[in-house]
Amino acid sequence: MLGPVRYAMIGGGEGAFIGPVHRTAAAIAGNCRLVAGAFSSDAQRARRSGEAIGLAAERCYASFEEMIAGERGRSDGAEFIAIVTPNHVHAPAAIAALEAGFPVLCDKPLADTLAAAESIAEAAARTGLLVGVTHTYTGYPMVRQARALVAGGGLGAVRRVAVKYTQGWLAKAEDSEGKQAEWRVDPARSGLAGAFGDIGTHAFNLVQFITGERMTRLSAEIRAAVPGRRLDDDGAAMFHLEGGGRGTLVASQICTGDANGLEISVWCEEAGLHWRQEQPNSLRVARRGKPEEIWTPGGDRNYLDPSAMAVTRLPSGHPEGYFEAFANIYRDFADSVRGNVPEQPSYASLADGLAGMRFIQAAHDSSAAGAAWVELQGDE
Amino acid sequence: MLGPVRYAMIGGGEGAFIGPVHRTAAAIAGNCRLVAGAFSSDAQRARRSGEAIGLAAERCYASFEEMIAGERGRSDGAEFIAIVTPNHVHAPAAIAALEAGFPVLCDKPLADTLAAAESIAEAAARTGLLVGVTHTYTGYPMVRQARALVAGGGLGAVRRVAVKYTQGWLAKAEDSEGKQAEWRVDPARSGLAGAFGDIGTHAFNLVQFITGERMTRLSAEIRAAVPGRRLDDDGAAMFHLEGGGRGTLVASQICTGDANGLEISVWCEEAGLHWRQEQPNSLRVARRGKPEEIWTPGGDRNYLDPSAMAVTRLPSGHPEGYFEAFANIYRDFADSVRGNVPEQPSYASLADGLAGMRFIQAAHDSSAAGAAWVELQGDE
Amino acid sequence: MLGPVRYAMIGGGEGAFIGPVHRTAAAIAGNCRLVAGAFSSDAQRARRSGEAIGLAAERCYASFEEMIAGERGRSDGAEFIAIVTPNHVHAPAAIAALEAGFPVLCDKPLADTLAAAESIAEAAARTGLLVGVTHTYTGYPMVRQARALVAGGGLGAVRRVAVKYTQGWLAKAEDSEGKQAEWRVDPARSGLAGAFGDIGTHAFNLVQFITGERMTRLSAEIRAAVPGRRLDDDGAAMFHLEGGGRGTLVASQICTGDANGLEISVWCEEAGLHWRQEQPNSLRVARRGKPEEIWTPGGDRNYLDPSAMAVTRLPSGHPEGYFEAFANIYRDFADSVRGNVPEQPSYASLADGLAGMRFIQAAHDSSAAGAAWVELQGDE
Amino acid sequence: MLGPVRYAMIGGGEGAFIGPVHRTAAAIAGNCRLVAGAFSSDAQRARRSGEAIGLAAERCYASFEEMIAGERGRSDGAEFIAIVTPNHVHAPAAIAALEAGFPVLCDKPLADTLAAAESIAEAAARTGLLVGVTHTYTGYPMVRQARALVAGGGLGAVRRVAVKYTQGWLAKAEDSEGKQAEWRVDPARSGLAGAFGDIGTHAFNLVQFITGERMTRLSAEIRAAVPGRRLDDDGAAMFHLEGGGRGTLVASQICTGDANGLEISVWCEEAGLHWRQEQPNSLRVARRGKPEEIWTPGGDRNYLDPSAMAVTRLPSGHPEGYFEAFANIYRDFADSVRGNVPEQPSYASLADGLAGMRFIQAAHDSSAAGAAWVELQGDE
Repeated sequence: MLGPVRYAMIGGGEGAFIGPVHRTAAAIAGNCRLVAGAFSSDAQRARRSGEAIGLAAERCYASFEEMIAGERGRSDGAEFIAIVTPNHVHAPAAIAALEAGFPVLCDKPLADTLAAAESIAEAAARTGLLVGVTHTYTGYPMVRQARALVAGGGLGAVRRVAVKYTQGWLAKAEDSEGKQAEWRVDPARSGLAGAFGDIGTHAFNLVQFITGERMTRLSAEIRAAVPGRRLDDDGAAMFHLEGGGRGTLVASQICTGDANGLEISVWCEEAGLHWRQEQPNSLRVARRGKPEEIWTPGGDRNYLDPSAMAVTRLPSGHPEGYFEAFANIYRDFADSVRGNVPEQPSYASLADGLAGMRFIQAAHDSSAAGAAWVELQGDE
Repeated sequence: MLGPVRYAMIGGGEGAFIGPVHRTAAAIAGNCRLVAGAFSSDAQRARRSGEAIGLAAERCYASFEEMIAGERGRSDGAEFIAIVTPNHVHAPAAIAALEAGFPVLCDKPLADTLAAAESIAEAAARTGLLVGVTHTYTGYPMVRQARALVAGGGLGAVRRVAVKYTQGWLAKAEDSEGKQAEWRVDPARSGLAGAFGDIGTHAFNLVQFITGERMTRLSAEIRAAVPGRRLDDDGAAMFHLEGGGRGTLVASQICTGDANGLEISVWCEEAGLHWRQEQPNSLRVARRGKPEEIWTPGGDRNYLDPSAMAVTRLPSGHPEGYFEAFANIYRDFADSVRGNVPEQPSYASLADGLAGMRFIQAAHDSSAAGAAWVELQGDE
Repeated sequence: MLGPVRYAMIGGGEGAFIGPVHRTAAAIAGNCRLVAGAFSSDAQRARRSGEAIGLAAERCYASFEEMIAGERGRSDGAEFIAIVTPNHVHAPAAIAALEAGFPVLCDKPLADTLAAAESIAEAAARTGLLVGVTHTYTGYPMVRQARALVAGGGLGAVRRVAVKYTQGWLAKAEDSEGKQAEWRVDPARSGLAGAFGDIGTHAFNLVQFITGERMTRLSAEIRAAVPGRRLDDDGAAMFHLEGGGRGTLVASQICTGDANGLEISVWCEEAGLHWRQEQPNSLRVARRGKPEEIWTPGGDRNYLDPSAMAVTRLPSGHPEGYFEAFANIYRDFADSVRGNVPEQPSYASLADGLAGMRFIQAAHDSSAAGAAWVELQGDE
Repeated sequence: MLGPVRYAMIGGGEGAFIGPVHRTAAAIAGNCRLVAGAFSSDAQRARRSGEAIGLAAERCYASFEEMIAGERGRSDGAEFIAIVTPNHVHAPAAIAALEAGFPVLCDKPLADTLAAAESIAEAAARTGLLVGVTHTYTGYPMVRQARALVAGGGLGAVRRVAVKYTQGWLAKAEDSEGKQAEWRVDPARSGLAGAFGDIGTHAFNLVQFITGERMTRLSAEIRAAVPGRRLDDDGAAMFHLEGGGRGTLVASQICTGDANGLEISVWCEEAGLHWRQEQPNSLRVARRGKPEEIWTPGGDRNYLDPSAMAVTRLPSGHPEGYFEAFANIYRDFADSVRGNVPEQPSYASLADGLAGMRFIQAAHDSSAAGAAWVELQGDE
């Protein structure tokens, strides 16, 4: 049975932020279709959420265990499962899904703790099934173009990186309210993921994605700057890359006035590359002794790398945004589930997700030791 | 039978630009679902196009007449029809749809000629059915915010407007090739719509939308700047608004290096408003004697007008783009078809579409008379 | 006697705007030195103004006639005279200076009326002396780079130009107060020069400077938008260039919120060039099918044209501004007075100044005739 | 004897970069006049340099010792001495000048070593004479506005700072050639001042200037990234402020493609402030829950703080740049020499200069100890 790839969702009920983003992304992707959901641990709410988006009542399950059981038994059942719950549910849900034979596309960070993330990795190894992580920003055409330029553009070695991800939405104590903020500032549900886990991992992943290098060690200081907060909301790190480059990383959710300020500069020997998430459709390429270049996406931009063209839907000058970047991740994952794995998938791999967890753990360890240098273990 | 609003599409088959945009927009809108299509006048191609996007074979019709007949007879038939053909098909398709009882959402400009547009208006009057036109840019939150500021922000009278819509994709004679460019530069299919019709109408509509005023007269010069081209590809106009303001409008498709350069400045007595389509998520508000303000969309931007908030899907800093603006038009039109007409719909009305055709005609007439002033008739 | 070129100034006393700008510019230029002044028609004020800037009392003259007589007789007398008075004094002062043997550097516009400007031209022809006009913006490196690219960069013909010069400082009736605004809105002192004369001529001059082409005809609408004002404060024009290109020009001083908004786009067959006075250190070059380029000045920018390099004082990234652009004009004029005429002087020539006056007159004539097309006479 | 304040210069002969900048700045300042110079340690060259700028031959001295002696004896002698030599000459020249009774305005960093800087401080203390340091960027109006907003704008505590100063001019080994680069990469003449000393001190000074707080500790990694270089060309640091805020600082001269990329963000509890040296005429103020504000200088900007207005020469929209910022430093220093000390001088104080040297030393010490935290001593 062909047609769009069928998927089911765990989490993402009424009032959630990221669940609807995943569903809209999948709708834009065009090659997948939501067929079932366990949208909430509250059965009524789960049903209401599912019906609001047009699912049949029988496929609005009251728990992820029920859903996995139910979908497993259907000939038209889900082909993969998307997990968009608070972090502490990622591991139990993912492991149950994998054990039941479903590939998993999981929101970031991979889990609430490094141990939990490793248990997902073990389940994936055991079952041989695909696990992807949604690090949204690798779905942007210009991020992929940056990666291509570093990899094959003759720019020489990466020498310095500056990445910052600054938001202001937790600038005040009273901001930690409402459904979304609530679980994010609760260690029981968010796990390690304060600012460094929630957005620092995006920054980390972006560094490794664009440079194509592993971060090998870091020295970090993280803290809860707002009195009474139990998770870190502000921090910074210095780091080394495996190729000898060095960098700084700032991740903070108390940067008043900033919205979603993810920015990265990667300076190579022959050029600097500069990208800002809030204006995602331009990549600034500053070469030695030449006028700066502004690269932009568009189906008519023949100068772009195939990996950037592959995630461009419109002619130049027609802005694509956050949803489209996310849609690229869904599209590639759905294709992969059917066996058509793109050469450079937009989704982060399980290894990337694990690396992100190690990064968070290392940042905590370093900070606890007065910003001591901590080595980041690679995958062997 | 509730659930998403069902719609059918005329035009938009393989290789087309705007058809897929409409379909993606509708998918993002979330409240409508494509159920049928007459995607091409070539039956094989129509079938292939429909199946590629998951439609049942029986609902991939070989002509719009067949589709209208087929959908009319089904209990689960389309509830409205979207028209995305070359311009010369707009009127016959729209009139047939209206006569058969279908509301119509039509791509811009409304028709190939003013007479054809008027015949659509007559059919709409006769049937009492809704006709909407997709002037994409009125779907952007910051455009709607600009309108709200002019209407109720205490800015005083509009005194000057500068709008330009400049593209470079027809800069060379050889650019008039490939499926999309081809019909757009052929008077038999495009009608009046060279650059002034294709993109000048967007600029015109944006002026009237943001200022809330009617353009009353214009003096225009349009021309085919590239040798051998049969339709205008470059032009400009000076114009008057009903409230006494004056403006300039440039519409050109030979502006080498420009992608989709729609920009507007509206200067009122107390502030100037500035918006650029290529960076749609900021509205510059320059008040007398104050620091400039940069307004941005986002669910957390409590300072925004409800009409802008209503078309915002994400927190601030998460860029929405062209597809989302277009999706707002679909969402509002689908709601309207079901009887829930928004206070300020994102789609252009039939009257707006007609005004756009009168604008094109007036620009041609003025230009033919050496840029003589031509009055623009209003709706009485 | 060598050393810096000695100059004297007419106008520019206490409270004036442009006089001090000229003097600072000359100080930066480094090759000229102010030695005398007739700074005001009020003798006390003239003396006070001169002493405040360190001139010897004997060289602070009570009238320009006295100054011309006095300087003429000295072995260390002025070598040229700068005129920075209200417009209606330009012609009498310039003619007196020329007749007495002094070259003249005159602020723009050249005079209050076309007839007055022509009388300056006659005096210049009669005496064979140099007259320059200070159209500040041609002193910017990136403006000169733009000119060089059009002239020799293989960009093909100029096809469209959009220039606007919008300010908001006369947005309200009450803004026409204070010394500076006062004479500018008084026809007896300002002559033809409302917004079109004061800043429209800058825009006009910039068009001709960058394109290297003559504006051949225009259709303009100008008006006094603010009730009670006696000179135009707002207007626009469409125009033709001698090479077949077309353009729009907006000049307005009622554009609330705009400071000194001079912007120009010149689209040639192979690239578009874009420059904004408020961010003068970048020139955007958008070529067909290539990433956009941002050209910036700097002594280390070997890719720049010699005409741009010649007016660059600092390494790249060290912003030069309005004063430095103006200084280039002084430096080139002073060099010319000593016989070292630069290949491409930064100052506007007498012919340019005359053309500017014809432009103002034509705009008035066109507007009075309902925006009729008016031919612009060239110099034969 | 009144008139402009007379000054003499040590260093800054033919081919130098910063000497001419000082002289142009002084010319713009308007209240000081160069009367003597010891421009080079080569007597011929010193003479040639002085005559080229119009100095009398007798006041073009062959050494700073001769100059100090010569000027000391004249009734029209210099009133202060500007030092623009390579760093290792700062201390001997400054001490000799102070001992002879001359106030000193010294280019940054204050000296080649911390010990040398302290010896200048001792001489200043001994003589009671004024020493100023030219940290250019504190002369910009918008930097001063930022300081005023932090100090009195109700923004609450500073919580995070991100400052970077990135240049690319030493990106390659072969870049270390030519007069200017040469001494800067030679430890014997530059002292501690590699990238951290040359530009990192500017960044450090800017942090302390805008926040009004002392940097109390830092952890830094600096290195010579380009093989063969003997001084650091690349580095980064994390730091703490005395009020509890934290920050990151990057200073590098191997950031290919960057020109003079000094940028700072200061996030306070109620707003973030953002300034970029390459576009110095705007200060972005992002308040909690409000549209962002863009503050710009201009004599008509009544909303500005007096400390910003005091260094603004032109109406809004007329860009002032690097020279004008530098001129403010000269103007304030010259006024101070005559006893009119501004409330908030644009020049850095001796204490600021010393703090900068301690910062450099601490960065070296920290880096040598594996980025260990090093306390920064304050002045008691």
